[in-house]
Amino acid sequence: MGSSRLEAFSDGVIAIIITIMVLELKVPQGADFQSLWPLLPVFLSYVLSFVYLGIYWNNHHHMLQATERIDGRVLWANLHLLFWLSLIPFATGWMGENHFTAAPTALYGVVLLMAALAYVGLQHTIIARQGEGSLLAQAVGRDLKGNLSLLIYLIAVPLSFFHNGISQGLYVLVALMWLIPDRRIEKAIQPNR
Amino acid sequence: MGSSRLEAFSDGVIAIIITIMVLELKVPQGADFQSLWPLLPVFLSYVLSFVYLGIYWNNHHHMLQATERIDGRVLWANLHLLFWLSLIPFATGWMGENHFTAAPTALYGVVLLMAALAYVGLQHTIIARQGEGSLLAQAVGRDLKGNLSLLIYLIAVPLSFFHNGISQGLYVLVALMWLIPDRRIEKAIQPNR
Amino acid sequence: MGSSRLEAFSDGVIAIIITIMVLELKVPQGADFQSLWPLLPVFLSYVLSFVYLGIYWNNHHHMLQATERIDGRVLWANLHLLFWLSLIPFATGWMGENHFTAAPTALYGVVLLMAALAYVGLQHTIIARQGEGSLLAQAVGRDLKGNLSLLIYLIAVPLSFFHNGISQGLYVLVALMWLIPDRRIEKAIQPNR
Amino acid sequence: MGSSRLEAFSDGVIAIIITIMVLELKVPQGADFQSLWPLLPVFLSYVLSFVYLGIYWNNHHHMLQATERIDGRVLWANLHLLFWLSLIPFATGWMGENHFTAAPTALYGVVLLMAALAYVGLQHTIIARQGEGSLLAQAVGRDLKGNLSLLIYLIAVPLSFFHNGISQGLYVLVALMWLIPDRRIEKAIQPNR
Repeated sequence: MGSSRLEAFSDGVIAIIITIMVLELKVPQGADFQSLWPLLPVFLSYVLSFVYLGIYWNNHHHMLQATERIDGRVLWANLHLLFWLSLIPFATGWMGENHFTAAPTALYGVVLLMAALAYVGLQHTIIARQGEGSLLAQAVGRDLKGNLSLLIYLIAVPLSFFHNGISQGLYVLVALMWLIPDRRIEKAIQPNR
Repeated sequence: MGSSRLEAFSDGVIAIIITIMVLELKVPQGADFQSLWPLLPVFLSYVLSFVYLGIYWNNHHHMLQATERIDGRVLWANLHLLFWLSLIPFATGWMGENHFTAAPTALYGVVLLMAALAYVGLQHTIIARQGEGSLLAQAVGRDLKGNLSLLIYLIAVPLSFFHNGISQGLYVLVALMWLIPDRRIEKAIQPNR
Repeated sequence: MGSSRLEAFSDGVIAIIITIMVLELKVPQGADFQSLWPLLPVFLSYVLSFVYLGIYWNNHHHMLQATERIDGRVLWANLHLLFWLSLIPFATGWMGENHFTAAPTALYGVVLLMAALAYVGLQHTIIARQGEGSLLAQAVGRDLKGNLSLLIYLIAVPLSFFHNGISQGLYVLVALMWLIPDRRIEKAIQPNR
Repeated sequence: MGSSRLEAFSDGVIAIIITIMVLELKVPQGADFQSLWPLLPVFLSYVLSFVYLGIYWNNHHHMLQATERIDGRVLWANLHLLFWLSLIPFATGWMGENHFTAAPTALYGVVLLMAALAYVGLQHTIIARQGEGSLLAQAVGRDLKGNLSLLIYLIAVPLSFFHNGISQGLYVLVALMWLIPDRRIEKAIQPNR
């Protein structure tokens, strides 16, 4: 079974998630720039989540480029990832409307953590299907960046009850770390094409 | 006429249905975890419906893999299935917001039943088009799992007025029964590829 | 320029329009079946519009099957069709919430009329691009069904201010007339494939 | 890496943005045509934004037709464009609900300006990847129309605080200027196909 329909469906879901988030930016009553001011935290959390979803889409794209065949297990591991990504608009909205306070900041981190675990799970499922010598297995290697992200989320979530600013900073840090697309896979693929 | 555009359109509709359901999870006013508590039934019904839509997408994917050609009848049988699936967000929201009481639980079952009947109808339409000796006809066989699901829905709907907990349990049971993707088709396809 | 991306984009827009209409079915406050009763007109207008959008998707699908090459004019004629289709959820919601009274029934007919004109316009643009001897030109022929639909809409719109029930009946009639997919094109394509 | 999935994802996002805008057209309470009257500015701003998104989709389509290979930089430049386009529904709704007053008109222009800059950025990124002698580089040339658009936006934004009607006129002017699809690229492609 080829991966093209899996890609199309994932593209669809991620595209809708990204665009639904913008509905949290509710059109204000006033007609001057001051009335936009209260929307700033919602806007900032939108930008952060947009970047995160962009990263997931990019890495997902790269991962499936290196995937030859899929089966039922891969389909469900992929749906599991999409489930956690689908909760990002809710977590984003709650965090933005409460000006980055403790509990919403922690929940946002939990959703990011669960999405990251689901991504790792999807990666493992694909590699298990294709064998340890496969293109993807070589490209991912020990997955330092992936493991580091999990570690940072694990620190940021409890920290948000003490210094929620630092937790926000850590979320931004992970995003910056991944903004550079997964060159490991791009490099591994290059010689084969 | 090939089936790729039918797949793409169905993917789009199912992706949007899944993501629209998450809009029922309305961002709460409070900024603490207690304010998330009332959302729990809405969240649980979201998880159940997400799994159901995932099952439909997976099985639809497998079915169309085994489908060689489509015509106008197949297009409409497919739209009929999408119609009932499109009512799942409404039924999910009504059930979640009323904490799984009798009438919403029954309606949820009716929508699941109609979607299942529409799926069986689509299957019959495709097989009728391709002949009884086709790949899909062999893969589906007597469709025990499909018929059992219909039977369970038929029991669960009236039961929800007496013990709505049992009806919920039956809906979960059917979902678990299908979570294993349709290996029958996967097996039937395998040797041909 | 091939037509695959035009199809994909149109599929996306139509899929979203269909699914957005279901958001007009707002989850009622009560938990019994009586509280669903006031939603009946909204539901019925949803069913009618779902069928109409299904018809457009089906015919659009058939038309592009018979289309070999597209250009900028075709892209814009297609966007023009999508524009009028995008107003169907609004017209549907207004008609459903006002229990099929005069003005909303007339507006619904106007939107259907404009969408039908845009469809005819798209057809002309494609045929003009491909020449009168093309597959599509032969398949469409004198387009009796298309012209009859336009005529019925033209009668139904003013009539809705006198007998809105008849206008509704005429909208249902046109839908039934088209429910049979465009066999003309299917037939014209068959021998070539 | 081929560009088909980038196209599919961009199609999905643009299709959703276009359709989400229509949600700003809220179904009015009254059942007569007078109750539609207050929606006129929202409707007009919807039409303008629909045309703008159609232009972006058309030009994006043409640009990627002339693009042979993409990499991570192109993916991010594309996401950057989609980010600004995703803010169009918000800017449209704010402008429409405030009857084209100064600040919303200015913000609308800023979003258009940023989207235009992001489009130019994407164009540069693709050309940088493919070399100055590439098909796209030749087709774009000195990009007079692109630069003129940027200049007009830069004039229209501050002007909206003095004569917001002129700013609106300038936005319409740019749209009309682009309504003619990018024949430069179409011409440059033609001989190669």
